Amino acid sequence: MKLSHYFLPTLRQAPSDADTISTKLMQRAGLIRKVTGGLYEWLPFGLRALKNVEQIVREEMNAVNGQEVWLPIVHPKNLWEETGRWNQYGKELLRFKDRKDAEFCLAPTAEEVITDLVRNEISSYRQLPVFLYQFGTKFRDEIRPRFGVMRSREFYMKDGYSFHADEKDAENFYQKAFTAYQNIFKRCGLKFRPVEAETGAIGGSFSHEFMVLAETGENEIAYCSCGYAANSERAECAPPSPPPPEPSQPLQEVHTPNAWTVEDVAKLLKAAKEKFLKTLFYMADGKPIVALVRGDHELNENKLMRHLGSKKLEKATDKEYEQIAGCPVGFAGPVGLDGRASLLADLAVQTVFNGISGANKKDYHLKNINRDRDYRPAQFVDLHVAAPGDRCPRCQKPFQFCRGIEVGHTFKLGTKYSQSMKATYLDAEQHSKPFIMGCYGIGVSRVVAAAIEQGNDENGIIWPASIAPFQVQLIPIESEDSKIKEAVEKLYQGLQKRNISVLLDDRSERAGVKFKDADLIGTPLRITVSSKTIEKDSVELKRRSSKELQMIPLNQCPDFVDTLLHEMLK
Amino acid sequence: MKLSHYFLPTLRQAPSDADTISTKLMQRAGLIRKVTGGLYEWLPFGLRALKNVEQIVREEMNAVNGQEVWLPIVHPKNLWEETGRWNQYGKELLRFKDRKDAEFCLAPTAEEVITDLVRNEISSYRQLPVFLYQFGTKFRDEIRPRFGVMRSREFYMKDGYSFHADEKDAENFYQKAFTAYQNIFKRCGLKFRPVEAETGAIGGSFSHEFMVLAETGENEIAYCSCGYAANSERAECAPPSPPPPEPSQPLQEVHTPNAWTVEDVAKLLKAAKEKFLKTLFYMADGKPIVALVRGDHELNENKLMRHLGSKKLEKATDKEYEQIAGCPVGFAGPVGLDGRASLLADLAVQTVFNGISGANKKDYHLKNINRDRDYRPAQFVDLHVAAPGDRCPRCQKPFQFCRGIEVGHTFKLGTKYSQSMKATYLDAEQHSKPFIMGCYGIGVSRVVAAAIEQGNDENGIIWPASIAPFQVQLIPIESEDSKIKEAVEKLYQGLQKRNISVLLDDRSERAGVKFKDADLIGTPLRITVSSKTIEKDSVELKRRSSKELQMIPLNQCPDFVDTLLHEMLK
Repeated sequence: MKLSHYFLPTLRQAPSDADTISTKLMQRAGLIRKVTGGLYEWLPFGLRALKNVEQIVREEMNAVNGQEVWLPIVHPKNLWEETGRWNQYGKELLRFKDRKDAEFCLAPTAEEVITDLVRNEISSYRQLPVFLYQFGTKFRDEIRPRFGVMRSREFYMKDGYSFHADEKDAENFYQKAFTAYQNIFKRCGLKFRPVEAETGAIGGSFSHEFMVLAETGENEIAYCSCGYAANSERAECAPPSPPPPEPSQPLQEVHTPNAWTVEDVAKLLKAAKEKFLKTLFYMADGKPIVALVRGDHELNENKLMRHLGSKKLEKATDKEYEQIAGCPVGFAGPVGLDGRASLLADLAVQTVFNGISGANKKDYHLKNINRDRDYRPAQFVDLHVAAPGDRCPRCQKPFQFCRGIEVGHTFKLGTKYSQSMKATYLDAEQHSKPFIMGCYGIGVSRVVAAAIEQGNDENGIIWPASIAPFQVQLIPIESEDSKIKEAVEKLYQGLQKRNISVLLDDRSERAGVKFKDADLIGTPLRITVSSKTIEKDSVELKRRSSKELQMIPLNQCPDFVDTLLHEMLK
Repeated sequence: MKLSHYFLPTLRQAPSDADTISTKLMQRAGLIRKVTGGLYEWLPFGLRALKNVEQIVREEMNAVNGQEVWLPIVHPKNLWEETGRWNQYGKELLRFKDRKDAEFCLAPTAEEVITDLVRNEISSYRQLPVFLYQFGTKFRDEIRPRFGVMRSREFYMKDGYSFHADEKDAENFYQKAFTAYQNIFKRCGLKFRPVEAETGAIGGSFSHEFMVLAETGENEIAYCSCGYAANSERAECAPPSPPPPEPSQPLQEVHTPNAWTVEDVAKLLKAAKEKFLKTLFYMADGKPIVALVRGDHELNENKLMRHLGSKKLEKATDKEYEQIAGCPVGFAGPVGLDGRASLLADLAVQTVFNGISGANKKDYHLKNINRDRDYRPAQFVDLHVAAPGDRCPRCQKPFQFCRGIEVGHTFKLGTKYSQSMKATYLDAEQHSKPFIMGCYGIGVSRVVAAAIEQGNDENGIIWPASIAPFQVQLIPIESEDSKIKEAVEKLYQGLQKRNISVLLDDRSERAGVKFKDADLIGTPLRITVSSKTIEKDSVELKRRSSKELQMIPLNQCPDFVDTLLHEMLK
């Protein structure tokens, strides 16, 4: 491609609403433009990267016997009603009516449609397993679209669905898909980590997220040198170490006017947050539940819900809180609550001696609260969001933490969808059984952004060679010189003949401008041809990721670059 | 691909609502499945054909310097308001609100979004021309989705948009795009005809449709051996030949109780339909207009609208009709109407002597109406839908007629969009000018259906080699025989090594079943290996399009097939 005819509008300054490095660079380097909140246009340069990722994903899906299909983006209500998701799914599911007032949604995911297809077409265990996948536009009506294409409303996704006759085959395939996902992100040149994750609106028995590691990631990951890693909203914590012994002090009521947050009361009483017992009120399937966590911890609602086995968990309203606690919001504590609601405590609460909490009385707190003597929870369970100080559930070593961008998510769905949709096959004994399912998503457009979030410096993008829009940027200096012109044209042809993608900067710009643009758009290899290099029958080669310059003989250049790229793609 | 592991569900019977040959065959041969009215799933076999068409289109678009982009499918209202199309477009434009009550539509076309992009990014004539195109899902909320994927609600389309600094460049490029379109449909192996067409909801100064010829096509085409061809709703007609002289008879009122259609009155009076003057009432931009056409012709509203230069043309209501004609609906005629409304007559009306029409009086008609003596239209113009008997506007030869399926449509848009959206560039003299635009669509999913509508017999599909999901179907008979097994595996590898796509029917089915399925799914070349062929160190080759069987030596087979396919793709 010749740059003079290429629609690659670059910007000196990113738009003011660009909120991450990748969003800024994707706009500055002419990959995308914003139509309106959460809706983007992919320009030719960006689309090349997107297609490169797509092709890698396609190859790895085909390698595990994936068969590509293409499903509609508009789904009818009736299928989503069969699984109950029409009502369960939040407002991210954009619902609308057609001209005949029939109801539809814009698909954020396609379990219903694919299960409907398979239940109609597959009737025998002999036709199993089958793994179908597609690439396509997905839509989620995000309340606050942000981070450019990373949390946009429309995005480009690969979603795959596997159907199996038994658990063992489903688990085996899950492992294969897991490995395929690792291959994909490796081939995309990303530093990533698969982690255990919550199943969310998709559901199922367990799931893994594939996280591209980046400080700006939306997700926090708890991980351990033993190999355990999980989204911190999912991570289990080992029971806390036994605390140093502390003699029990008598319970004491203290006046705390206008102070009810842990922060404010801790300041007032000059106490550490770890000394506090946070008392939280919920309604689980309509029944009140009180959860206790240590003052420095956050309650993990997923853990609470899973422990209770409840379908719907909501924070209690102020009114409900006051009815249970018998005091205004902010002054509740465990002492005396036992009889009024079911009381569950986090494991770490066991480490609190002579603790502090509300007195169930306006403007008063209690000091020196001790369990058994002052309160008695129904159970101690793991309820808090993993945090520094917590330890690995497998090996008890302290967790380390990092941040990541979720680019893929695999789910062991089990029979969640097949049961509700009566999607069954006949086994060898002619018994009707629900399909065992798995589902496997990759945010293809998000991978492009994540790669940039991970690969950049102050001058612009640094692409992994495998997904770079072009692999080589060919830059003639003083391009009017016929010798330079001829050498460049020959190189341009020679590289392309070797299936190397080349962007030729044939503009009549100064060397400085060309170099700056090449840095901004981040092409992995830069080849410069000038009168200086031509004198030596050579070209100057530079990697975007290094400052080193290398002189290569002109006639060896295409082969040299070919070999180098093969190495870079390993 | 091995058929035993391929998700290719075939049907003996098409679903009862399949209304065309292609819809039946696409479902029977496992290309598509219906989710609900107008929404289809593309299964692996169908998607391969779709992707083959896509790739041909992409190559030809790139050959005329097209640059691929990817635009959202959800468009914000404000852009569609700038061009007025938010209100003008009918109910096919699906409009909806997001969670914040902002209004959007599902894009049936993308002129607004692309013009917005280009006006933001291109400011100088030096950056022109630019031609951007995309592949993507389009949505039209059809009132009556039908013909499978040919008139579905969701469909897969290539839409391209070109921007030029002047008319000459726009016209030159239009011609290039026109040629590219011809290349595309030729390469897809289709019999087609480009025809002049109406511009419809897209607008612009002129347009061409690319019609795949098929008896079941929705469109009628008028064409001539001189090369002229047009959608019959667009076709101009040469002025009719002067009629044989006929002496003028005295005007005569006849009683025609309960007869008001041309058919009924013609029967009653034993007169030919060609003798009638049909009198039609319209409101053009709110003003009444009366149009006269011959009894055997249909009025072409597009022609009437274009002649009047009106923006809105509607049939008069019964009330308006009665007010103008002074009689009940069905009994109006031209005699005496001249003063009451503007009267326009079709050119063919000139050929009617001693004609028949309503008497503007309930239950009465007039015989022997002659122009000048009895009525005097403001003008005679070409107003009727081209029909048998009409002649070519270029060479006056009689039209021939055929039917077609519209698979592509090119528009010379001019400044329709750039002017309303204030999309301008600076010319060499620093004057601000609106872009001159063209737009170019191809219904990629419709091409697949049209190819099947054109290529089939009683046994199934007959694919053109260029878009066939697989080029070769390899069929072992008695496949347990180790010699056959070995030969087939070698062939399978050898063909694939030559980039030939092969479907290997490795099922343990009888020869008859395999042949029947091969005919149904229509793979261009069938290669059979059996003990009989192996005895002679040969395979049996058969083209889907012929009954002929050919024996080919086993070891020459891959090269032979390679050469044959190259010929078939020419």
